[in-house]
Amino acid sequence: MTLLESIRTPEDVKKLEPERIETLTGEIREFLLSAVSRTGGHLGPNLGVVELTVALHRVFESPREPVLFDTGHQSYVHKILTGRRDFSALRRQGGMSGYPSRAESEHDFIENSHASTVLSYADGLAKAQDLRGETGSCVAAVIGDGALTGGMAWEALNNIAEGRNRRVVIVVNDNGRSYSPTMGGLADHLASLRMTQGYEHALDLAKTALNHAPVVGQPLYEALHGVKKGLKDAIQPQMMFEDLGLKYVGPIDGHDEQTVERALRRARDYGGPVIVHCLTQKGKGYAPAENHTVDQFHGPGPFDVETGEQQAKPGLKWTKVFGEEMVKLGAERSDLVAITAAMMHPTGLAPFAEAYPERTYDVGIAEQHATTSATGLAMGGLHPVVALYSTFLNRCFDQILMDTALHRQGVTFCLDRSGVTGDDGPSHNGMWDLSVLNVVPGLRMAVPRDATRMRQLLREAVAVEDAPTVLRYPKTAVPEDIPTLEKVGDMDVLRRSPDEGNSQDLLLVAVGWMAEVCCDVADRMADHGIGVTVVDPRWVKPVPEELVAEAAGHRVAAVVEDNGKVGAVGDAVARSLRDAEMDIPVRTFGVPQEFPEHGKREYLLAEMELTAQDIARKLTETVSRYAERELESDESMRNY
Amino acid sequence: MTLLESIRTPEDVKKLEPERIETLTGEIREFLLSAVSRTGGHLGPNLGVVELTVALHRVFESPREPVLFDTGHQSYVHKILTGRRDFSALRRQGGMSGYPSRAESEHDFIENSHASTVLSYADGLAKAQDLRGETGSCVAAVIGDGALTGGMAWEALNNIAEGRNRRVVIVVNDNGRSYSPTMGGLADHLASLRMTQGYEHALDLAKTALNHAPVVGQPLYEALHGVKKGLKDAIQPQMMFEDLGLKYVGPIDGHDEQTVERALRRARDYGGPVIVHCLTQKGKGYAPAENHTVDQFHGPGPFDVETGEQQAKPGLKWTKVFGEEMVKLGAERSDLVAITAAMMHPTGLAPFAEAYPERTYDVGIAEQHATTSATGLAMGGLHPVVALYSTFLNRCFDQILMDTALHRQGVTFCLDRSGVTGDDGPSHNGMWDLSVLNVVPGLRMAVPRDATRMRQLLREAVAVEDAPTVLRYPKTAVPEDIPTLEKVGDMDVLRRSPDEGNSQDLLLVAVGWMAEVCCDVADRMADHGIGVTVVDPRWVKPVPEELVAEAAGHRVAAVVEDNGKVGAVGDAVARSLRDAEMDIPVRTFGVPQEFPEHGKREYLLAEMELTAQDIARKLTETVSRYAERELESDESMRNY
Repeated sequence: MTLLESIRTPEDVKKLEPERIETLTGEIREFLLSAVSRTGGHLGPNLGVVELTVALHRVFESPREPVLFDTGHQSYVHKILTGRRDFSALRRQGGMSGYPSRAESEHDFIENSHASTVLSYADGLAKAQDLRGETGSCVAAVIGDGALTGGMAWEALNNIAEGRNRRVVIVVNDNGRSYSPTMGGLADHLASLRMTQGYEHALDLAKTALNHAPVVGQPLYEALHGVKKGLKDAIQPQMMFEDLGLKYVGPIDGHDEQTVERALRRARDYGGPVIVHCLTQKGKGYAPAENHTVDQFHGPGPFDVETGEQQAKPGLKWTKVFGEEMVKLGAERSDLVAITAAMMHPTGLAPFAEAYPERTYDVGIAEQHATTSATGLAMGGLHPVVALYSTFLNRCFDQILMDTALHRQGVTFCLDRSGVTGDDGPSHNGMWDLSVLNVVPGLRMAVPRDATRMRQLLREAVAVEDAPTVLRYPKTAVPEDIPTLEKVGDMDVLRRSPDEGNSQDLLLVAVGWMAEVCCDVADRMADHGIGVTVVDPRWVKPVPEELVAEAAGHRVAAVVEDNGKVGAVGDAVARSLRDAEMDIPVRTFGVPQEFPEHGKREYLLAEMELTAQDIARKLTETVSRYAERELESDESMRNY
Repeated sequence: MTLLESIRTPEDVKKLEPERIETLTGEIREFLLSAVSRTGGHLGPNLGVVELTVALHRVFESPREPVLFDTGHQSYVHKILTGRRDFSALRRQGGMSGYPSRAESEHDFIENSHASTVLSYADGLAKAQDLRGETGSCVAAVIGDGALTGGMAWEALNNIAEGRNRRVVIVVNDNGRSYSPTMGGLADHLASLRMTQGYEHALDLAKTALNHAPVVGQPLYEALHGVKKGLKDAIQPQMMFEDLGLKYVGPIDGHDEQTVERALRRARDYGGPVIVHCLTQKGKGYAPAENHTVDQFHGPGPFDVETGEQQAKPGLKWTKVFGEEMVKLGAERSDLVAITAAMMHPTGLAPFAEAYPERTYDVGIAEQHATTSATGLAMGGLHPVVALYSTFLNRCFDQILMDTALHRQGVTFCLDRSGVTGDDGPSHNGMWDLSVLNVVPGLRMAVPRDATRMRQLLREAVAVEDAPTVLRYPKTAVPEDIPTLEKVGDMDVLRRSPDEGNSQDLLLVAVGWMAEVCCDVADRMADHGIGVTVVDPRWVKPVPEELVAEAAGHRVAAVVEDNGKVGAVGDAVARSLRDAEMDIPVRTFGVPQEFPEHGKREYLLAEMELTAQDIARKLTETVSRYAERELESDESMRNY
């Protein structure tokens, strides 16, 4: 039996003699490598927090004292130490979630993986402890240095600081590649920490770290890290926190468990809010992950532990098509600028940034600022393209509405990972964008069905100068091109039954990449003698007038989309028909308005009855029922 | 001719000899008092920025160098100095907007009045100047000290600081009642400003200010103001900004125009981002406004200049009903806590805060943190009530979705100023909440029609512990109670035609306070022999099953709501009927999905055809057409 196998609860972690901890952390790293190399998952972040997580569970009394993780993908070690070691179906339906999960364990609190939120939860939980009179208790929150660029983290710091007697321990997990060589700056009463061995380790680590390439120069990072500052100035970052009323400990070596433990104990016992600044290394202990250049071990697919080689994912990605077209557009238009919120590579903007560095802005994890500064850029005569993951769009909804749209500015939002994404669980699905953006006056929205339409629509979007435009596309591989049979206005007709009479049974509106499914539906229904017209409107907001006109010639209309059903294109088409007093039956197919469990996309779509088979069956029933009613009506007239 | 009458453009302001400025600022104050006392509008904020605005227009070359205002209600002086002196129809249809307006003047940039956004616009505009090679140009942005508590402002500071050569002058208009007695902390090359006469004035002003009551203790305020810190510590706030890479000038006396002008010139000429910290006094120069206690001259209605007496607004306000019921509930439930985002009085929470100060939290202008810390409080076993203006809800949409709803926490959101508000223009209308909240899984939403229902629904909402609940209500006076004829499940039936046959013509769904209009519609249609059932579902999300069942007995269904039509209750009811395969014609009446112009609510509703007369006319047509079709069908059967 390994030492790790003997650890089933945080109590077991607490009981360990300090000299056995290195054995435990070694076994945890082996376990992580072995498990994640088989299933894929988040590797680098978890290898970086092994000692930190062990220390957290030795110091705090979870769950009475909540241990919270921002962006929960760094919670694998926490899971292992709280009795969850079955990683065999990690992130698959029925298997363990890749994030904390309240259903899995009483030690888990936050399932949302959007960054910069953890300090607000901590503030609320600490206030609750306070009101309940649990004065001895504490809340621990782990947040990355990058997440501190998000405004919400600042709002929380400002509030946590106000509760001078509330015990919140904020662990800044500083795993950036601009590690700080900073020293000093401790509050007087915590100054003794300076002279510990751990601090010397931190210095060594910092020196090594300086050989890595610096990240895009964010002043906040620099302030936090003291980079580009002399030794004298380097004490200022701590002052910045102390100005807010927060005590500060650090920087400490996050891979020296005993040092981290000591720092956490002191912070815990201080009796008020304290920041503990830990230096850690992403991928620690696994050479291929330590030596990464573009962070390919942040969340790899299955890989070979020996060589570090990852299985190539098949097919062309939408991200790549977007990135290539952006480079072309950048050459044609000198007024095109690009904005990312700390996701240059994942959103595909890296090639643009390389070609036009002066026209590319990384604003940090700050979608609100991304949107409104883009609006300012547009007011200044440029055309910004803001590249985001769809799920993060909700963070700048007010800014798109009240800043970009109200002022009628030409800003293009490109939303990657739209629709059902699956593995990462509820907070990464991009199933909200069509609904919330439908609300925004003047905004125009397009959904491509294939690579050709993607390039086309991006060009059309950046040509609009008096309104925000949006393009959304999924995480999947790009399907083969589906050719256009005929154009009706801006819409593409993809299928039209040759039989004039039959073709009027059903108008099927395919939203973007659901065209593949819709053509399949049409073919299946044709086999049953039902005539179906499939149209891809390309631009789904506003609903094209031609679509309403086209519906007039059909008995039933239906819409299929990869988005929550509520308020999306289905609802919009139904409303357009209603407002035109065209009261034909409408059926809408989309994602049920619930938080999807984690699992493979294909599995989830089948569960949601969004396959061609399901849709064809239901629509055949509907069309048949209405055809029968008409027949009955005819017959009753005949029999009268 | 007064001096003010000779000022038509910023050029005229620049030409003035310095010794005439006091005359000008005096005339501006007289003008403001005279104009706003007649129409109502924002007074205090504008009296506070007279000298500051004159100085801005003497230093910057607007519009080439944009002069931007956060929360544009402080832009009246700017309007006066840029050729707009017709205040006779301020905030009325056809009259001048109460905010900057791009349609009114090339000197106006930002129409949105949501706080904390201005620095992001400034960042974008400065980047655009930079890319266009306009190196000599500058952007000036005025932001209140309170708005710095908003996370978005921090995101922007972090980014502005990065552009070390971009000229952004950030004017912190510090008009809080915790004025700073801070001194020192100037960057060396700007140090000479310290010894100016203006600085001595600032000190005097600060001393006077200290006699005022302090605002709710926000650490950020305290850091900014150096309150509760010794002289030695008081230099830290400036360091906080300098840590981010921002130069700092201040604090200066914002009512000494020459001092402000000198500071702005130096900041402008510095060649990089600079913060100018101005101390101003809200209501300056008008005793009743200077001596306010609860800020009643921030945005008064018409008032008597001599006495300061405001015309009482008639009728009971929803805000008051909410506030009273909260106090009662607080006595009954010790787990009830209240949260406001810097709007204790306007949201009606002040009585609760007075009764239960330990259970009330003001988090600053920080809706994101308000929501997620409330979620933490709920996880900790308490029931938080978050009181917001509806228009600011959009700022925490992601947090309601991914924090409160995903974790199924019992947090109640109370949204004041919901629906069409009118005077304040597009960014203050609460016409979005029903739409965006409809998207959130599990969230429940209620709309009261009168004071009785308001109290009832608030009680029902805070009793829900496993999902977020929302209550929305308007700015108008509360109408008289509309009694319930019968209950159908949780729904109230308000009208039902006595004639069984007739009553099946139309099911009219009244969303909350639109019940008054709907009953009027029913009465008008009854006069034409049409039978109408009016129901108030009370809880509009989820759509009650009873509503779908009730619709089955009717020929046509219609929904009337005071919200943008897209994705709101009308769409939800139509979808529910569709999903139940109940394909009766539906008509939905709501606010057109456009940004409404400023104007009186009554005027706007008439423009939007949301009066009983309009709705009755349209529905009579629809019902008649369908009745006729059935008749024709019957006849054709008879004639067969």
